[in-house]
Amino acid sequence: MSPSKDQHIVAALSQVTTATLTTLLLKKGLRNVWMRGARPLKPGLPRLVGPAFTLRFVPAREDLATPESWSSPVSTRTAIEAMPAGCIAVVDAMGVTDAGIFGDILCARMKKRGIAALVTDGVMRDVAGVRATGLPVWCQGAAAPPSVAGLTFVNWGEPIGCGGVAVFPDDWVVVDDDGAVLIPAALIDEMVSTAPEQERLEGWIMSEVEKGASLPGLYPPNAENKARYEKSKN
Amino acid sequence: MSPSKDQHIVAALSQVTTATLTTLLLKKGLRNVWMRGARPLKPGLPRLVGPAFTLRFVPAREDLATPESWSSPVSTRTAIEAMPAGCIAVVDAMGVTDAGIFGDILCARMKKRGIAALVTDGVMRDVAGVRATGLPVWCQGAAAPPSVAGLTFVNWGEPIGCGGVAVFPDDWVVVDDDGAVLIPAALIDEMVSTAPEQERLEGWIMSEVEKGASLPGLYPPNAENKARYEKSKN
Amino acid sequence: MSPSKDQHIVAALSQVTTATLTTLLLKKGLRNVWMRGARPLKPGLPRLVGPAFTLRFVPAREDLATPESWSSPVSTRTAIEAMPAGCIAVVDAMGVTDAGIFGDILCARMKKRGIAALVTDGVMRDVAGVRATGLPVWCQGAAAPPSVAGLTFVNWGEPIGCGGVAVFPDDWVVVDDDGAVLIPAALIDEMVSTAPEQERLEGWIMSEVEKGASLPGLYPPNAENKARYEKSKN
Amino acid sequence: MSPSKDQHIVAALSQVTTATLTTLLLKKGLRNVWMRGARPLKPGLPRLVGPAFTLRFVPAREDLATPESWSSPVSTRTAIEAMPAGCIAVVDAMGVTDAGIFGDILCARMKKRGIAALVTDGVMRDVAGVRATGLPVWCQGAAAPPSVAGLTFVNWGEPIGCGGVAVFPDDWVVVDDDGAVLIPAALIDEMVSTAPEQERLEGWIMSEVEKGASLPGLYPPNAENKARYEKSKN
Amino acid sequence: MSPSKDQHIVAALSQVTTATLTTLLLKKGLRNVWMRGARPLKPGLPRLVGPAFTLRFVPAREDLATPESWSSPVSTRTAIEAMPAGCIAVVDAMGVTDAGIFGDILCARMKKRGIAALVTDGVMRDVAGVRATGLPVWCQGAAAPPSVAGLTFVNWGEPIGCGGVAVFPDDWVVVDDDGAVLIPAALIDEMVSTAPEQERLEGWIMSEVEKGASLPGLYPPNAENKARYEKSKN
Amino acid sequence: MSPSKDQHIVAALSQVTTATLTTLLLKKGLRNVWMRGARPLKPGLPRLVGPAFTLRFVPAREDLATPESWSSPVSTRTAIEAMPAGCIAVVDAMGVTDAGIFGDILCARMKKRGIAALVTDGVMRDVAGVRATGLPVWCQGAAAPPSVAGLTFVNWGEPIGCGGVAVFPDDWVVVDDDGAVLIPAALIDEMVSTAPEQERLEGWIMSEVEKGASLPGLYPPNAENKARYEKSKN
Repeated sequence: MSPSKDQHIVAALSQVTTATLTTLLLKKGLRNVWMRGARPLKPGLPRLVGPAFTLRFVPAREDLATPESWSSPVSTRTAIEAMPAGCIAVVDAMGVTDAGIFGDILCARMKKRGIAALVTDGVMRDVAGVRATGLPVWCQGAAAPPSVAGLTFVNWGEPIGCGGVAVFPDDWVVVDDDGAVLIPAALIDEMVSTAPEQERLEGWIMSEVEKGASLPGLYPPNAENKARYEKSKN
Repeated sequence: MSPSKDQHIVAALSQVTTATLTTLLLKKGLRNVWMRGARPLKPGLPRLVGPAFTLRFVPAREDLATPESWSSPVSTRTAIEAMPAGCIAVVDAMGVTDAGIFGDILCARMKKRGIAALVTDGVMRDVAGVRATGLPVWCQGAAAPPSVAGLTFVNWGEPIGCGGVAVFPDDWVVVDDDGAVLIPAALIDEMVSTAPEQERLEGWIMSEVEKGASLPGLYPPNAENKARYEKSKN
Repeated sequence: MSPSKDQHIVAALSQVTTATLTTLLLKKGLRNVWMRGARPLKPGLPRLVGPAFTLRFVPAREDLATPESWSSPVSTRTAIEAMPAGCIAVVDAMGVTDAGIFGDILCARMKKRGIAALVTDGVMRDVAGVRATGLPVWCQGAAAPPSVAGLTFVNWGEPIGCGGVAVFPDDWVVVDDDGAVLIPAALIDEMVSTAPEQERLEGWIMSEVEKGASLPGLYPPNAENKARYEKSKN
Repeated sequence: MSPSKDQHIVAALSQVTTATLTTLLLKKGLRNVWMRGARPLKPGLPRLVGPAFTLRFVPAREDLATPESWSSPVSTRTAIEAMPAGCIAVVDAMGVTDAGIFGDILCARMKKRGIAALVTDGVMRDVAGVRATGLPVWCQGAAAPPSVAGLTFVNWGEPIGCGGVAVFPDDWVVVDDDGAVLIPAALIDEMVSTAPEQERLEGWIMSEVEKGASLPGLYPPNAENKARYEKSKN
Repeated sequence: MSPSKDQHIVAALSQVTTATLTTLLLKKGLRNVWMRGARPLKPGLPRLVGPAFTLRFVPAREDLATPESWSSPVSTRTAIEAMPAGCIAVVDAMGVTDAGIFGDILCARMKKRGIAALVTDGVMRDVAGVRATGLPVWCQGAAAPPSVAGLTFVNWGEPIGCGGVAVFPDDWVVVDDDGAVLIPAALIDEMVSTAPEQERLEGWIMSEVEKGASLPGLYPPNAENKARYEKSKN
Repeated sequence: MSPSKDQHIVAALSQVTTATLTTLLLKKGLRNVWMRGARPLKPGLPRLVGPAFTLRFVPAREDLATPESWSSPVSTRTAIEAMPAGCIAVVDAMGVTDAGIFGDILCARMKKRGIAALVTDGVMRDVAGVRATGLPVWCQGAAAPPSVAGLTFVNWGEPIGCGGVAVFPDDWVVVDDDGAVLIPAALIDEMVSTAPEQERLEGWIMSEVEKGASLPGLYPPNAENKARYEKSKN
C-alpha cells in the first residue's frame, strides 16, 4: 500500500476501540480475531495501528536452540533488521510462557527502527529493561529464560497463528487496553469506512445512559432511538 | 429480607476480610466458597457486601448468539433492569476469557441503578470505559470481542456456577482484594454474629507478632494466650 | 557456608539479572531453572539473593487439613521458626491457586525473623495485609481460602518441586521482576565468577544499540565487536 | 413433533455420519456443534439419533450436594422418570472428570425406560456396571466418586452447555464413533433432506480413490467429476 | 498390622466397588480420595486391595536427572527392593505425562517381588513390555522418554500427593475399573465393617430396577423400601 | 538419501523400541523428542520408521477456512499428492482436538500412495472410516468437525512443531505403542549404529530379572554384570 493510504488507515482506526472493531468483524462473519494472551505490558498506552510483520518459532530442540543460533543468518536479529518502520511485529511463540522471546537489547533496536508495537502470545524477558526502552509491547508477561530454553526461531514473513488467530503478512493489527485485534487485509477498507460511525453512535448511547435512559430499545437502538440519534447529529 | 436487616449484614461484614470468612465457613464444613478467577479490576477498592443476583450464559451458537439477540426480551439488557439496588450481580460465564460479557455502556447503566458490584468468572470488554464508569468489578481481565463471540445469554435468577462455586439467588457475596466469597443464605446470620470477633482476635495476634512473639502457641492461641487475649479486651 | 562467603554471593549476584543467570545456566546445560508462576506481588522490588529453605505441601484431606493442624508440632508455624535469617523460603504448593499458603500474620513473623523473601508456585491470602508486612513475596496471586482448604503441610528441609523446578535445601535462589531462578549449589561459585562480566558486556552492547548499531554481529558479538568491547574496558 | 415425523428423522439420519453432518452445518454457518469430551464408552455402537432431553449440574457445595439430596423432589432420579422414550439425555456436568454423574442403577432405569442414549461432558461411575446395563453412553470416562463429590444437580429441561456447545430442549442429537453432534431444531428438516445425498456423493468419491484417482479436482469434485458422479447415479 | 488382619481387609474389600467406597468415605466427610489420572492400563483386571507404599519424584534437573542416577543408592531400583509383598506402590509423578516412570524391566522385578499393583498419576514407558510382565498398573497412559527426561526421583516412604490426593505410608488403596481410591489408615476398620452391607443393599435395589421399579423412594430407599429390603434378607 | 540407505535405516530401527531411542537421544543431550498427544489409533500396530514429511496448519479464520479452500492449489489434497512413498507424514495441528484434520477419503489416498504412517498432535474425523483404510495413524483421537472448523492449512515441507517437538523436513520418525519419536537428521547414523546393541543388553537384563536377580547393580549394569553380559554374547 502507499504510505499515504497507510497513514489514513492509522489515523482512522486510532479513534476506534478494539471492542467496536470486533463487533463489526463479527457482523462480517469473523468471530476469531482477538489474540488470546496478548495484554499490554504497561497500562495506559495509546491505541496503536499498523500492518502485521510476522515471526515464527517452533519448539526448542537442544541441538538447534542454542546461544550460537543467535548468530545465524536466519535469526531474530536479522528479522528485526527486515522490519519496516510503522509495522506491528506479531510473534507466534505457541503460547509458551516459560521462555522470553526478546529482552531489552532487541526491543531497544526495534524502538530505534521505528516499529510501532510488538505483539506475541508468549512472554518477554528482562522485563524491567524492556519497559525502559519505551517499545509498546502486548504479551502474556515475563520469564527470565532466553528464547532458546523453549523455542527455536524459524522464519519471518509467513502465515502464523498468534493466540489462536491466523495472521497473514498483509493483514492489519490494532492494539489497545483490551488486547490485539486482527483485521484481514480484504476488510481493512470497510473497517476504515464504517467503524468511526459506530463509535459515534456508541458515544451518543452512552450520553443517553448518563441521562438515565434504560437499556432495552436503546442499545442496540430501536427505530425511535435511531431517529433521535440521527437528529442529534445535526 | 427487610432493608434494615440487609443494612445490618452489610455493615457487619464490611469489617471482615474474605480470608476470615473462608476460615469460618471451612469450620462449618464448607471448603468451596471462593470464586476462582474473580479478581478486582482496579486495586484498592473498598470491601463490598450484597445479596447475589445471578445471570447465566451457555456457549455461543452462531444462530443464537448474534448482535440481534441484544434486542430480545430475555437479554443482558433486561436482566440489568431487573436488578435491585445494592445487589451484587454474579455472572456465570463458564470461565470463558475470550469474549467480554459487558462493556462500558452496560456497566454505566448498572452503576446508575445502584448495583453494588459485578462478579464474574469471565472477562469485561472496553475495559478502559468500564473503569471510567466507576462500577466495582471482579473478573478475569479483559477481551475485546463481544459476548456473542463466545457466549449465549439465557436467563437470570437461577442457580449458577461461578468460578467453580454454586451460587443460589438468595445467597450473599463479599468481595475484597482476595476475591469473591459466597455465603449461603442459611449461614449469613452465623457469619454476622461470629466473624467480627474472629477479626478482633486476629488483630490482637498481629500486635503480639509485632512485639516479637513467635507463632507456635499464639496462632492459633493455646489456653494461656486465649486467656491473655480475653484479658486484653477489658 | 560461612557468613562472609554468603555475603559475597549476595553482593555479587544482586547486580545480575535473572535473565543473564538463566542464559549462563543454559550454557552449562541447565534449561529448567525458572520457577513457573512465581511473580513479584509488588512491582519495583529490588533484586534479592539467598540460600533456599524449602517447605512442602501435599493435597488437602479433610481429616488432616484442618485449622487444628495449625497447632501441630510439624506445622507452617514451626517451619517459620526454623528458618535462618537471610534465607529465601521456597514453598512447593503444587501450583494450587485456590487456597492461600500464608496470610498477614505468618508473613509478619517471617519479616520479623529476617527472611529475605518468600517464593511459591501457589498464592497468598489476606493479600492486602501481606503487602503491609513488607515481606517480599513472589507468587501466583491471591486467594481468600486458608491453606487447609486445598493443602496439607508435611515438612521442611526436603527436596521439592516449585513451579516445575527441582529445589534442594542447599541451592541458591535469585528473584527479580522476571521471577525466581534456581542456582544449584554446585554451580554457585561459577555464577559468582562469570555473571558480572556477562552483565558488563550486555551493558556495552546496549550502549552500541543506543548509538544506532544493528544487531547482527553485535549481539552476540563477532570477533571484531568482541575486540572493540575489550578495548572499551580500558 | 409427531411420532411418525420423529421416526422419519431417526431413520434418515441414522445413515449419515456425524462427520458429514458437521460439514453441512458449517456450510450453514454453524462451526460449534460437536460436544467436546463426549466419547463412546464402548467401541462399535451403532449410530443413534434422538431429540435432546437436558439436565443441568452446578458445582458441589457441601451443604447441598449430599447423599440426602438424592431423595429430593428435584433430583437426578425424578429427572430420569420425566424422560420420554427415544430421547437422548444430554447432561451438562461442566466438564468435571472427578465425580461420576450416574452409576449402574440409574443407567439400568434409563435403559428400562427406553432412553436412546446418554451424552455428557462429564464421566460415569461404576463403569463396569454401567456397561452391563447396555445403555449407550458418550462421556469422558470413569471416576469412582459420586456426583455429590463435585456436582449439585439443579434442573432438567433448560438450555445448557455440554462440551462447549449450547443445547436447547427441542434440539436434536446424533452420536457415533466421532462423538456427539447437535442439530438445532430449526435446521433438522434441512439436514434430513440434504445429508443423505452428501453421503452418497462421498461414497462415490471413495470408490474413485480406491480405483486410484488423485484428490485434487475429485474431493471436492470439479465440474467434470460432478458430471461423472451424476451420470453414475443412473 | 498382622498378616492375617491384612488378609481379612483384602478379602472384605475385594468385594466392594470403589464407587461404593467413595460414597461411604464422603459420608465420613472425605470428598477427595480418588486419584485423578490413574486408569487401568488393561481392561478387565480384577479389583485389588493393599497397603500403600509411596514413591516421590520432583521435576527433572539436567545435573541430577541422568541415566547415571539410576545407579545411586537412593533410586527407583532400591525403592523396588524395599517394597513388601502385597503392597500397592503409589507413585507421585506430579501428573507428568511426557516421561515414563517405569518400563518393562522394573515392572518385571515388581511382579517377581509380589507387588499387588502399581498406581501413579504419571505414565509408563515401553508399555507393550509392561503389559507383558503381568503387573497390574493404573496410570495416565504411555510415553517413550525415560523418567529422567522429566523427573528426579527423591525418596520412598514419605507422604505424597498422587492425582490430587494425599497418600500417607500406612494408608490403604483399592483399585478397579473406576480407578484408585485412598482409604486413610484410621478408617480402614470402619470400611471393612460397613462397605459389604452397602454393596448388598445396592444389589437388591438393582434387582428391583430390573423388575421395573422407578427410582424415587427406591434409591436411596425410603422407610417402606428399607423394610422390604430387610425382609428380603431372611 | 539413497533408497538403499533408507531401507537400511528402516530395517535397523524397526527392531528398536522408541523407549530405547529416547534414552539414547537423552544421552546425546536431547530430552525433547517425543511428540505429545500422538497415540496409536489402533492397538497392536507394528513399529514403523520413515523420513518426515511435514504439514502445517494455523488457526481457522472464517474467511479462509472454508470448504471452498479444499479446491485451492495449496491444500491438504495437493500436499498428499506431493508425499513420497515410505514417508511418515507429520502434521502440526497445534494440538487442536475439536476439528479432525483428515477423514476416510484422504487417508485412503495416502494408503494408496504408500505413505508409511500419519502422525499428528491433532485428531482424525470419520474415525471408523479411517480405521477401515488401514493407514497407520498416531493422533489424539477423533472429532466429527472438518478441519476448517478449527484450522487453516498453509503449507508443507516447512519446519513445524508437533506435540511440542521441532520437526524439520529431513528428520526421521519412529512410531510404536509408546508414541512417536523424532530423530534429527544429524543423529540418524549414530542411532542406527548404537541402538540395536542397547536393545540386546536390555534383553539380557530382562532375562536376568526373570531368573530372580535384583535391580541394583544390574540395571544399569555395574562392571561385574557388564562382564557377564559380554561373556553371554559368545
